[in-house]
Amino acid sequence: MRLDKSRKNDELRHIEIIKDFLIYPEGSVLISFGNTKVICNASVEDKVPPFLKGSGSGWITSEYSMIPRATQDRNVRESTSGKISGRNQEIQRIIGRSLRSAVDLSLLGERTIYIDAEVIQADAGTRCASITGGFVALVLALRKLKEYGLIKTSPLKYYVAAVSVAVLNDEVILDPNFEEDVIADVDLNIIANENREIIEIQGTAEKKPFSKEKLNEILYIAYSGIEKIIAIQKKVLKLTR
Amino acid sequence: MRLDKSRKNDELRHIEIIKDFLIYPEGSVLISFGNTKVICNASVEDKVPPFLKGSGSGWITSEYSMIPRATQDRNVRESTSGKISGRNQEIQRIIGRSLRSAVDLSLLGERTIYIDAEVIQADAGTRCASITGGFVALVLALRKLKEYGLIKTSPLKYYVAAVSVAVLNDEVILDPNFEEDVIADVDLNIIANENREIIEIQGTAEKKPFSKEKLNEILYIAYSGIEKIIAIQKKVLKLTR
Amino acid sequence: MRLDKSRKNDELRHIEIIKDFLIYPEGSVLISFGNTKVICNASVEDKVPPFLKGSGSGWITSEYSMIPRATQDRNVRESTSGKISGRNQEIQRIIGRSLRSAVDLSLLGERTIYIDAEVIQADAGTRCASITGGFVALVLALRKLKEYGLIKTSPLKYYVAAVSVAVLNDEVILDPNFEEDVIADVDLNIIANENREIIEIQGTAEKKPFSKEKLNEILYIAYSGIEKIIAIQKKVLKLTR
Amino acid sequence: MRLDKSRKNDELRHIEIIKDFLIYPEGSVLISFGNTKVICNASVEDKVPPFLKGSGSGWITSEYSMIPRATQDRNVRESTSGKISGRNQEIQRIIGRSLRSAVDLSLLGERTIYIDAEVIQADAGTRCASITGGFVALVLALRKLKEYGLIKTSPLKYYVAAVSVAVLNDEVILDPNFEEDVIADVDLNIIANENREIIEIQGTAEKKPFSKEKLNEILYIAYSGIEKIIAIQKKVLKLTR
Amino acid sequence: MRLDKSRKNDELRHIEIIKDFLIYPEGSVLISFGNTKVICNASVEDKVPPFLKGSGSGWITSEYSMIPRATQDRNVRESTSGKISGRNQEIQRIIGRSLRSAVDLSLLGERTIYIDAEVIQADAGTRCASITGGFVALVLALRKLKEYGLIKTSPLKYYVAAVSVAVLNDEVILDPNFEEDVIADVDLNIIANENREIIEIQGTAEKKPFSKEKLNEILYIAYSGIEKIIAIQKKVLKLTR
Amino acid sequence: MRLDKSRKNDELRHIEIIKDFLIYPEGSVLISFGNTKVICNASVEDKVPPFLKGSGSGWITSEYSMIPRATQDRNVRESTSGKISGRNQEIQRIIGRSLRSAVDLSLLGERTIYIDAEVIQADAGTRCASITGGFVALVLALRKLKEYGLIKTSPLKYYVAAVSVAVLNDEVILDPNFEEDVIADVDLNIIANENREIIEIQGTAEKKPFSKEKLNEILYIAYSGIEKIIAIQKKVLKLTR
Repeated sequence: MRLDKSRKNDELRHIEIIKDFLIYPEGSVLISFGNTKVICNASVEDKVPPFLKGSGSGWITSEYSMIPRATQDRNVRESTSGKISGRNQEIQRIIGRSLRSAVDLSLLGERTIYIDAEVIQADAGTRCASITGGFVALVLALRKLKEYGLIKTSPLKYYVAAVSVAVLNDEVILDPNFEEDVIADVDLNIIANENREIIEIQGTAEKKPFSKEKLNEILYIAYSGIEKIIAIQKKVLKLTR
Repeated sequence: MRLDKSRKNDELRHIEIIKDFLIYPEGSVLISFGNTKVICNASVEDKVPPFLKGSGSGWITSEYSMIPRATQDRNVRESTSGKISGRNQEIQRIIGRSLRSAVDLSLLGERTIYIDAEVIQADAGTRCASITGGFVALVLALRKLKEYGLIKTSPLKYYVAAVSVAVLNDEVILDPNFEEDVIADVDLNIIANENREIIEIQGTAEKKPFSKEKLNEILYIAYSGIEKIIAIQKKVLKLTR
Repeated sequence: MRLDKSRKNDELRHIEIIKDFLIYPEGSVLISFGNTKVICNASVEDKVPPFLKGSGSGWITSEYSMIPRATQDRNVRESTSGKISGRNQEIQRIIGRSLRSAVDLSLLGERTIYIDAEVIQADAGTRCASITGGFVALVLALRKLKEYGLIKTSPLKYYVAAVSVAVLNDEVILDPNFEEDVIADVDLNIIANENREIIEIQGTAEKKPFSKEKLNEILYIAYSGIEKIIAIQKKVLKLTR
Repeated sequence: MRLDKSRKNDELRHIEIIKDFLIYPEGSVLISFGNTKVICNASVEDKVPPFLKGSGSGWITSEYSMIPRATQDRNVRESTSGKISGRNQEIQRIIGRSLRSAVDLSLLGERTIYIDAEVIQADAGTRCASITGGFVALVLALRKLKEYGLIKTSPLKYYVAAVSVAVLNDEVILDPNFEEDVIADVDLNIIANENREIIEIQGTAEKKPFSKEKLNEILYIAYSGIEKIIAIQKKVLKLTR
Repeated sequence: MRLDKSRKNDELRHIEIIKDFLIYPEGSVLISFGNTKVICNASVEDKVPPFLKGSGSGWITSEYSMIPRATQDRNVRESTSGKISGRNQEIQRIIGRSLRSAVDLSLLGERTIYIDAEVIQADAGTRCASITGGFVALVLALRKLKEYGLIKTSPLKYYVAAVSVAVLNDEVILDPNFEEDVIADVDLNIIANENREIIEIQGTAEKKPFSKEKLNEILYIAYSGIEKIIAIQKKVLKLTR
Repeated sequence: MRLDKSRKNDELRHIEIIKDFLIYPEGSVLISFGNTKVICNASVEDKVPPFLKGSGSGWITSEYSMIPRATQDRNVRESTSGKISGRNQEIQRIIGRSLRSAVDLSLLGERTIYIDAEVIQADAGTRCASITGGFVALVLALRKLKEYGLIKTSPLKYYVAAVSVAVLNDEVILDPNFEEDVIADVDLNIIANENREIIEIQGTAEKKPFSKEKLNEILYIAYSGIEKIIAIQKKVLKLTR
């Protein structure tokens, strides 16, 4: 039995996605994975990074941040330290790569979509919640672009979601909360699409390395989680693209 | 008639205060002044700034920040620019001063209470919402300190609220929204307590200076706003301290 | 009787303004309010912030700084800390707003005038000295622009000066020095023009809030100070604009 | 046939490890994976991060940097930009995690070993070369600690090496060079130990997601690479720990 | 004949040293070399850098800065750029080294004397004016330490002054102003003591290298300048130490 | 007899210059002065600083850095501190000035050549090794420009080398190592060309000032060193320009 006693090993926490959470962003979502809560905003700007100028192609990038008291103890604000932590940089790069994968950037036009993930409460799984919620915000923003006649066809290729899996005493558990995550031997994040294809895999086993066989066991459970999460995204987005 | 046609000149926007919004902070509130929404968290730490070490006295300080898409256009994140803007520094200093005024710091013990104001949606009046909501978060944190036996008597001296007043075509309007604020001749923020005493007054009339008589007219309307806001705070806090 | 025994409650310190203090700036002044000494330089540059490009309008902005040993103890240099303190940012924003108010920016042409206030000795009242001296430097720079045929008519609307008032044991005292300022209950800065109109009011009563009646008493004394200071400015500038 | 025509798909580049490359570090190595060249230095310091003080345990951390002209075009120096890039932060975190995994930190005593990886020439695979070379530098430093009587038994648990695998037109190729890497659909880094256990897996498929079956194919080839690299490490280190 | 027509090649500009210019620093001086004006403040603090703790020895260090409009064009403030320019760092290191040379640091006690040089007007020769004026400020501070009984004997070893020499069309000119400096082929600064001994020599001939013979010619003229400047320092300091 | 017992007072350490050390830079060299080892890379970019735009002239600039463990103790990385140390700024400015002196910039075209000096091992004399090796890298880059037909004639004016001289117990020693350098009374760096002309001289005698006569003695020995070093450069570069 896992530490989060209310759940089976392959059970997700309650996932909730509130659409149109804020009024200004082109796409805005408040997503919860249990106690983890992230505001995901998609903002469209009419400019692209230098390497895309004149290419006709667009770009998707992400910034990820936690408010100081998203956690049990208060953290120093990054604007005060003047530096973005390595952890946050690592996460925002993954969000960007994952969501770019879902979009045919050549159909986006010379625009950048910023996915801002603001973690307001952190109980593990914030990067997965950010990607999953960021995807919904992205779709909402793409719809707005289409609605305004700025793009003709949706550049969306497939749905994308992310889930975290942990190994703890040799047992594989889905979507660990903080209490479970902090003592896990292996921590693996899978970002996949609706076709069961892997977009990004990141696993770290600082405490106890694992075998190829265990990896396949992890993937099996991860896929089941991804499928359930994509079903929730589809319900929120009403199946359409 | 004012630009925000649904309101009379001396009418506040709808104010809502959701208590215990997040689970980790000692005090947490989501406050709305119309479309302006601020998460106010109060965090208690067992340390004080150097100048208070050994004094037995505590401290209250504040950090204020906007998420990038709190506004119509996306702003550069301060952790990216590496600098806190002058505007934000100005605001967080006011929040700190105003809330320190409400507390007998010598009864707080050698602790610091951080009031973090995270503006998630900005439609003018964010500093007033931050002070008003920050006050409620502060009271919740003080109650927790008392509940845990860390302080014996509440160090709270009085209720504190803040409101903004604008002068526009010589008319004085209460609690302007962004549309009104941006074209106002005078922009004045009053922070006052339940005894109609002024804790902080900040007025700027870059476009059109004003007379002492106009200032008194402004104060009259401001006081009426402060009274209504304090009534809301008291209802949320159930009158007790 | 006030702490600064040589003065009555409504008496200013000795104010001295040395015109053309440095040779390179378009306007340069060394101003003293008693022991408070500030070098105020006005520099004209042929560029404007992005939001004014193509508008035909100009801009006035300010930077305020203290040398490390302007005070009793040596302060860390801001270029060393890499950050401008919140206090200094707050002050330079006030100087900018106050002096912009005095000028019809549309008559200035697409130019920026920088008002640099360098506090070389601080005995309270540095922001008021900076605004008062900065105004004189500004007028000198405007005259030079006219002399060089770069502007035809002076864009100056009125004289602007600033003064600080403190409340201490319920008594209102004008232009407090450091010794008085540090123990005052209320600290209020008024920036006003020659028509007794308020441009900016900033009052903080962290220690002891005050009533509307006290505010009027403060304003009465502040106005008398402003009038005397404007008379000094006019004498230095030989009455002309 | 792969782009690097001299190699078969499952063939590594020539790997060379020059031991004791610099004289001051406790462990120092110049490692080449083909044209990729990294100086890896291990430095021992008698202090630990705050969370380990008094624990008796040690720590291993890493810093990774490229000299400006390690690449085809010159890059801006990070000391000039004042920021460590997200990419470099991501990499140095992986190096740290991977090498900590190889050591029983409780046997290290309260010391920190810094693994500094200085990329002097980059032709893809720099993070794998840094981990592989960093491991050798780490072992050299541990030996020195033992030689000096500072630790009694070697805290080394197993050998650790890293290799990169790419998928390109559905073919899996080992240890891609820059030319191959830049057009690959999938880029996967595996860090594993001598027991064929995975310590870290990081795969990104921004261009073309991949299946679980492909992942197993990748792992098969990665393992063969890891085995050959560990054999080289063992030869350089003369098999002993 | 030199560009500064009022002077012979071996003639200094008018040098003026106003003692006790500001009231708070332990030593304070306003020094002018012609139009070059520098405020030099010496501040004593009861702490030393880590490498001197427990040594009984003191330290002297310097910070050098220009106000933005010390020059013909306005410069960006270093607190805004967040960086101290290479030029200013180079200069403040020279001031520190030169003035440390003049003092037996072991007699100073565990104190640091900060020499802050604030250039308020720059017409070439600012580093020489800073060292020359900084020396006088230093002596004033040392006297205050002795007066307060904090040191028994003066730790001063000798007088120190600095002068700049330029080569222009093969002619050697003393103490060039900006107009001369900017077109000089060689720019050499000599810091020497009252015994005609060199403490620091810094010469740069980016435009036209020079011979050993020319160097001796430069030194001859430099010495004559140093002697005159030390005579002025002695007069200001009334010959005593 | 000097501390480095294997050498006579006027004897250089073994100097080695490995040409074409790295493959990407236009010019690349690994230079050793005994245990001091510096990678010097010359990179050509098709842009110039603002003050040269449209002038037809080029620019040469330098950046100098040490890897953290170039020294006995590990140093904090400048990208971590976010600041370039004063010492490194001072050195990179000298390298830039010295190498610009060797080139007719008007013949270079609107290009910038960056000389990056990466100290991988420091045993004193790093600035001299950087200039000497940087010169060779510069010549290699100029040759490549000529080979590619981008410049017609070599803009090289003369060979440039640098050497350090110390005074220790009144004895003048050439090219001191760290052990000697750290206790020297005088530390002097001479940068000169093949015509025995001085380009830059920098001497500091914080511990014990020196006479003009001693300076001439130092120069005599320095010249002999410069001549030997230029002979080595010529051999490496095969005498041609």
